[in-house]
Amino acid sequence: MLNFNYYTPTKIVFGKNAESRTGELVAAQNCKKVLIHYGSASAKRSGLIDRICASLDEKKIAYVTLGGVVPNPRLSKVYEGIELCRKEGIDFILAVGGGSVIDSSKAIAYGLAYEGDIWDLYLKKEPPKACYPVGAVLTIAAAGSEMSDSSVITNEDGWLKRGLNSDYCRCKFAVMNPELTYTLPEYQTMCGCTDIMMHTMERYFTLEDNTQLTDSLAEGLLRTVMDCARTLLADPQNYNARAQVMWASSLSHNGLTGCGTLGDWACHQIEHELGGMFDVAHGAGLAAVWGSWARYVYREKPSRFAQFAVRVMGVEPQEDDEKTALLGIAAMEDFYRSIHMPTNIRGLGYELTEEQVRELAYKCTYMETRTVGNFKKLGKKELEEIYRSAV
Amino acid sequence: MLNFNYYTPTKIVFGKNAESRTGELVAAQNCKKVLIHYGSASAKRSGLIDRICASLDEKKIAYVTLGGVVPNPRLSKVYEGIELCRKEGIDFILAVGGGSVIDSSKAIAYGLAYEGDIWDLYLKKEPPKACYPVGAVLTIAAAGSEMSDSSVITNEDGWLKRGLNSDYCRCKFAVMNPELTYTLPEYQTMCGCTDIMMHTMERYFTLEDNTQLTDSLAEGLLRTVMDCARTLLADPQNYNARAQVMWASSLSHNGLTGCGTLGDWACHQIEHELGGMFDVAHGAGLAAVWGSWARYVYREKPSRFAQFAVRVMGVEPQEDDEKTALLGIAAMEDFYRSIHMPTNIRGLGYELTEEQVRELAYKCTYMETRTVGNFKKLGKKELEEIYRSAV
Repeated sequence: MLNFNYYTPTKIVFGKNAESRTGELVAAQNCKKVLIHYGSASAKRSGLIDRICASLDEKKIAYVTLGGVVPNPRLSKVYEGIELCRKEGIDFILAVGGGSVIDSSKAIAYGLAYEGDIWDLYLKKEPPKACYPVGAVLTIAAAGSEMSDSSVITNEDGWLKRGLNSDYCRCKFAVMNPELTYTLPEYQTMCGCTDIMMHTMERYFTLEDNTQLTDSLAEGLLRTVMDCARTLLADPQNYNARAQVMWASSLSHNGLTGCGTLGDWACHQIEHELGGMFDVAHGAGLAAVWGSWARYVYREKPSRFAQFAVRVMGVEPQEDDEKTALLGIAAMEDFYRSIHMPTNIRGLGYELTEEQVRELAYKCTYMETRTVGNFKKLGKKELEEIYRSAV
Repeated sequence: MLNFNYYTPTKIVFGKNAESRTGELVAAQNCKKVLIHYGSASAKRSGLIDRICASLDEKKIAYVTLGGVVPNPRLSKVYEGIELCRKEGIDFILAVGGGSVIDSSKAIAYGLAYEGDIWDLYLKKEPPKACYPVGAVLTIAAAGSEMSDSSVITNEDGWLKRGLNSDYCRCKFAVMNPELTYTLPEYQTMCGCTDIMMHTMERYFTLEDNTQLTDSLAEGLLRTVMDCARTLLADPQNYNARAQVMWASSLSHNGLTGCGTLGDWACHQIEHELGGMFDVAHGAGLAAVWGSWARYVYREKPSRFAQFAVRVMGVEPQEDDEKTALLGIAAMEDFYRSIHMPTNIRGLGYELTEEQVRELAYKCTYMETRTVGNFKKLGKKELEEIYRSAV
């Protein structure tokens, strides 16, 4: 078990009608003017934005709105938000949406506290030193950005997707009403479940031993999300299943399921490049590459994959860990198929060329300046093999 | 699943040598002068207090020390601390110890921010409105006070034990080095494991349905603590087991294992009165009354106790839930005995008289002004029956 830090200062207000408390939560931050930042027109059409505005009006809090954030959120939108906030004297960013909106809001909030070009922080030219306060009203259970220290932005100039992690950007509060996710299309719901699970799986596949408590939490969370994903296929307005999945989205990426482990994160890096090149849904992209990654790396520590197979996937232990491990990987892919997720890149709707395989691997290593993953460290050559086998 | 709030702002620094980071953590709070508050002489004798002082010296932070906090911490010591802090101009309280020291430190911190008599807050005459900042260096895994919103103090005048809960008193940080618990006597370690489990069990025994994710986390935590308690009986310096138990102490009382449930807390109230009357170790007191409470209430919802029996205690499901439930209760008592915890009040070393039974029940209902528990609401008459069967 490794030493660890754990810091989750986000105040969670969870349940039916939670969004009516937005005004009270913003008021507690002692801010003067709020940017209500959102994505698609549906947040407006559904009446959610109006309800949030009413809750702010009640507390006499001024605000302006900015919509139009897209999946794999773009740097240009971040620049637009920073400019608007400076012009309007905004000192609190309220994200209304899922991970893309929250990540974009965090980027704006970093930008407001930084004099230079915000993209420099995402390129790690400098570490962040401050961030304006951000809050979230969650409408998509997936990215876990509402409690995480992470923000991922795509620069359209070269389609580079880059993440920035620091405690500065952790949301002050997150308002979580599972009913707000009732109308998500099935595909997006299942992408969300996949992403949630992957945030825990990235932390779970570690070479560390003696992480018994963290393991038991991670395994319980994974089983719960799988069970609820199946329920939601048949019954998308099941409050209970929506609630478990929504709460799991936060717990899966706030650090809890990785205390004492050294996370892997190769799949996220592998998918980030796909997302940069093709604009695929993040969850589907993760499902498409996971099996190829798992089969490439499981021999580093078959007992870890065997434990996953038995405790999470319900596989019967075989005569050796390698066999159990492989059955577990196959069972996970069966699960992905059962919730209509792809298990290869073709399933995402793209035919990768050999040239693209090489480009993806090259970009994923930041032009051969790093390896990705910790369970097994992967360079350009290894990544090419994984992309190739995921075709 | 009930609506819930979840707020755990405490920064955790966990692992070997974590206490060397105390100075850095206090410095981040921008305070001028620290009270180092501790319990027994062993904190000083072991060199821990010296190491903490060195860490503060390194950051040029002034401090004074105050030792002598006892289990079931006393109001008189709190008054002494408040007076010392006011005299010395203290603006940060650093608790070095377990739950008693942290609870006492929180009471001092409330007192510094309050003009009247601090006991009035514990009597709920007024709600707390502020609290000075508190941090903790944990040396006993048990109470979970390092991440909880709770402080429990005993007023020697009448031996009333009263708790105060608010987010104001949550620790700014908690330094958690499992090695600091190596030298705890076996009895205290097992009392700690019992207390940790009970913080989750109090939340777990609920009439609410559809708390699947929370249940899976709670069940995993309980299984882990039971397993590690058994390990520590034979091998008290097992780092892994000490680490799981220490981290479980925080997660078991920071709210995580109760999200969406309505906690019961009757056993804690029943034990608090015992603790006020006899000065028993809190964990042992909980073990002594739990079985009597469980047998008195399980019929309110046998399926809940049956789920506990199967998933936590590994009981084979019987033909009906009541039978499974009873086997689970018996298995829990077997576990208590296996770690040398009492399962009745005689096991604590006291023979309760009928008069004392009535007095305990009377005090436990705050002189018949309240019921305790939510799984089944218990008045004076019901509490008398539980105390009587726990004799």
